[in-house]
Amino acid sequence: MTFRLLATLGTLALAASPLHAAEAEAVDAPASVEQWGVFELALDGPSDGNPFTEVRLSAVFSDGTSTVEVPGFYDGDGSYKIRFSPDTTGRWSYETKSNRWDLTGRIGSFTATAPGPDNHGPVRVHNTYHFAHADGTPYKQVGTTIYNWTDTPEAVQQQTLETLAAAPFNKVRMLLTPQPTSYRKEFAPPRFPYAGEPPTDWDFTRFNPEYFRHYEKRVAQLLELGIQADIILFNPYGRFGFGTMDDESDDRLVRYTVARLGAYRNVWWSLANEYDFLRTKTEDDWDRLGELVQACDPHQRLRSIHNGTRIYNHNRDWVTHASIQNGAAVREPGRAQMYRDVWTKPVVYDEVNYEGDGRYRWAALSGRDMVHAFWCGTVAGTYVGHGDYFDTEVEDTWTSFGGTMSGESWKRLAFLRKVLEEGPPGGIDPIDKWRDVRTAGVPGQYYLTYYGNHTPAEWSLELYRNGVTEGQRYRAEILDTWDMTVTPVEGELVTKQKDRYHFVDAAGRTVKLPDKPGIAVRVRRLGDDGKPTELSLPTD
Amino acid sequence: MTFRLLATLGTLALAASPLHAAEAEAVDAPASVEQWGVFELALDGPSDGNPFTEVRLSAVFSDGTSTVEVPGFYDGDGSYKIRFSPDTTGRWSYETKSNRWDLTGRIGSFTATAPGPDNHGPVRVHNTYHFAHADGTPYKQVGTTIYNWTDTPEAVQQQTLETLAAAPFNKVRMLLTPQPTSYRKEFAPPRFPYAGEPPTDWDFTRFNPEYFRHYEKRVAQLLELGIQADIILFNPYGRFGFGTMDDESDDRLVRYTVARLGAYRNVWWSLANEYDFLRTKTEDDWDRLGELVQACDPHQRLRSIHNGTRIYNHNRDWVTHASIQNGAAVREPGRAQMYRDVWTKPVVYDEVNYEGDGRYRWAALSGRDMVHAFWCGTVAGTYVGHGDYFDTEVEDTWTSFGGTMSGESWKRLAFLRKVLEEGPPGGIDPIDKWRDVRTAGVPGQYYLTYYGNHTPAEWSLELYRNGVTEGQRYRAEILDTWDMTVTPVEGELVTKQKDRYHFVDAAGRTVKLPDKPGIAVRVRRLGDDGKPTELSLPTD
Repeated sequence: MTFRLLATLGTLALAASPLHAAEAEAVDAPASVEQWGVFELALDGPSDGNPFTEVRLSAVFSDGTSTVEVPGFYDGDGSYKIRFSPDTTGRWSYETKSNRWDLTGRIGSFTATAPGPDNHGPVRVHNTYHFAHADGTPYKQVGTTIYNWTDTPEAVQQQTLETLAAAPFNKVRMLLTPQPTSYRKEFAPPRFPYAGEPPTDWDFTRFNPEYFRHYEKRVAQLLELGIQADIILFNPYGRFGFGTMDDESDDRLVRYTVARLGAYRNVWWSLANEYDFLRTKTEDDWDRLGELVQACDPHQRLRSIHNGTRIYNHNRDWVTHASIQNGAAVREPGRAQMYRDVWTKPVVYDEVNYEGDGRYRWAALSGRDMVHAFWCGTVAGTYVGHGDYFDTEVEDTWTSFGGTMSGESWKRLAFLRKVLEEGPPGGIDPIDKWRDVRTAGVPGQYYLTYYGNHTPAEWSLELYRNGVTEGQRYRAEILDTWDMTVTPVEGELVTKQKDRYHFVDAAGRTVKLPDKPGIAVRVRRLGDDGKPTELSLPTD
Repeated sequence: MTFRLLATLGTLALAASPLHAAEAEAVDAPASVEQWGVFELALDGPSDGNPFTEVRLSAVFSDGTSTVEVPGFYDGDGSYKIRFSPDTTGRWSYETKSNRWDLTGRIGSFTATAPGPDNHGPVRVHNTYHFAHADGTPYKQVGTTIYNWTDTPEAVQQQTLETLAAAPFNKVRMLLTPQPTSYRKEFAPPRFPYAGEPPTDWDFTRFNPEYFRHYEKRVAQLLELGIQADIILFNPYGRFGFGTMDDESDDRLVRYTVARLGAYRNVWWSLANEYDFLRTKTEDDWDRLGELVQACDPHQRLRSIHNGTRIYNHNRDWVTHASIQNGAAVREPGRAQMYRDVWTKPVVYDEVNYEGDGRYRWAALSGRDMVHAFWCGTVAGTYVGHGDYFDTEVEDTWTSFGGTMSGESWKRLAFLRKVLEEGPPGGIDPIDKWRDVRTAGVPGQYYLTYYGNHTPAEWSLELYRNGVTEGQRYRAEILDTWDMTVTPVEGELVTKQKDRYHFVDAAGRTVKLPDKPGIAVRVRRLGDDGKPTELSLPTD
């Protein structure tokens, strides 16, 4: 599904219309914005009645080649906004559409300039099971979860941003609407998404713009840190009443949130957390809401839905990637790969239990367990999410509220991220998926084998036949995933056919492996210059 | 989807029609047949032109409550047949419909009598992940594969039936159309499904009735042995041209096969073997063909499709259960369960590699490996299929041609089948699916734990909390899955809460386990009489 249409009316046609020209007047909007940045058009309009439900507003943007209609939203106090993120550079013109005279027919234009050095555009699905930014920069997901961090005291939110700045994570899962659990049990959430009175007396037809302004400020700050915001639209934890709204109110929340936040290029939509625990909704509701997000988001951000114990049908067209809770899937190599096959989409194990103090069994992973889970997911060609759930004297858990982390895994995930980012730009896939559950890579180019809790005494080259011929030259390195060391194996390995299925080192060399868990071996093909071959991003 | 409709015209209305009465004449049909047996109506009709394509024939059957239209088929030499398997006892009337005067408007009736002692009706999906016969008798699938057995010399086919009579298998996967591989390389397939000349000069508009008569005789013989016939409609192995027919010919083969064979209550439809290796067809083709089987089969036999390396979208409505090739899924406990969650249908691992002599790596399982695979699948709440692939001096492989088996696993599968049949009638499901990958059962009633290659020194009772309260009484037995022994643990175990999640034996007893692989423990709840509780079939 695409919202980019070949324009039947080009820029010129729009600008030349006498009616439009007559109505042109000043609007509050910048003259230029970076490609993939946020162009915000602000308009004054009516504040009487209920602007949230009574006023329709959108704008049609065109760069002369493609045309896209972008929904607006009411920001309170008679102020209306339309946010658009241009995906090409150059001149974009627009015209507003509304059921109110003072909001409709406004025209204007702006220039989308070349993106800045840290702006690689939004993340898209790439190479079937992987992700990449729109400019072709690979994106290797290393996520964490901080459900309620935007509801904590201001100082904690600042601390959270500081922690993230020094952490390896490039994605944060976070709830859109608050849950009753309060930071240190002392604070009620400081603001709510609707007009009304806490805990449950809400007017679901009137949003609280201040709530969303705060939320989107945090999203923009994550963007500055290079972090994707996986925004969870619905959650089952509320006794605030956000889980029992009627269909119309659910749809309104989706449309409003998408209109406000969708232009931020680091936004992903997670329809729900533990959707099956929100027992006030049916599978049909989720399909309807997922399709609504797909239909009303002109920016087509990534979309998924996260399960409790019942796996969603991720074959649905609206789902761009699978967002999975299943700790068992990454506890041993050989499991995580199985979901790739059934959906042929990227699989992100967003919840694999948390590193924690074990008050609950879902928060009882050691740091080593968590790092192990990431590596199990990695060599299955999938991605994993982190959680840190220690309830200490000085603070509540990271995964609930942010602040600082207490676990030991996160530093080691920086090492993993580095390995991933040094790896093939298009991602790594199981090489021999139902035989060698420890190895992912690119046939004939790159192999990453993770031994996990298995501690073989020695290693020797053995490559599955795909992409391999005799006489290829490889270099190997021993990786310690916990101590974060890379130890090169001296010399080159040269392939020789062993049997019907495998190639081995012609000289039959073996390498002693450290006698400890968490060892991986990285094997890279050498070019004629004796350096590892440069791999490029596959075209989709 | 159902083909049973409330009759708008009852039996009486049909019988009272003067037109129908006037046309009544003798037809060749029995006066009675067992419920779930095959009622066959034989009619003489035209043999000129091409009866396979030019003559339409069906009959509408009604028992006064429900009405079902059953397609007929041309059996050669001017003979037409309609086969119907009544699913209720009592009087059934029928009227034929055809585009030929001498075949249309034939009416009659017969009595469906109570089923015989070995007739439990067809196998249906039951209790979401399991199967049961229509009369409520549990069906615990223990399958094998004999692709080409109907194409071997007559003596080998007889021997195959004798082998099956002494084997534990209650399902056989078999190809409908021959593949070029010939028994002992000496025999061409003795007959082909189409008129024409081998190897490739076929008239796809004319079936060879003699081929199907032979095939259905074998299906009926399997029925006599209590064995389901999982009939593989298409396969990728042919150079006879049956994989490159046009859509119309594919559809015709499906309709003809379903009309001829669907009335046999032991028939299952497997749309293809290794469907993704048949690269002349697309995913859309398979969906069309699957929906066609669903639409044209009045008996609604079980339907699936078997993959090579690409897993099919078994969420499709026409798929009744998943038929999977994936040996890795049952090589370790913890994997097989994952596919259950994604489709919420029974999962049958029909191909997990074969027990064999290892010429190919897909035929290199030891007998122990094969038995292990079955038990891994079992404690995941799934079902497994056997293969035996040894190319010996005296014969070709069982899995290609039948005859006798060379492997060691099949005898041990009799023990597994007995354990399954002594277990809960509704089947066993993972008790704590993402935590304890070794245990399936019914909460608070029955637990089967399989240790596989893990050899703990001792065992003690530890039951996940679902269905368990303090003071429940259990009896345990140690099962050796290879040596096929059941060793009772003396005395009773009585539950006591251990922590938030588990119950243990109040007396804290431990039991020494044999120091060898393949050990399982069966735990059954005791009733007030000190005997294991009788469990009944859950209603769907």
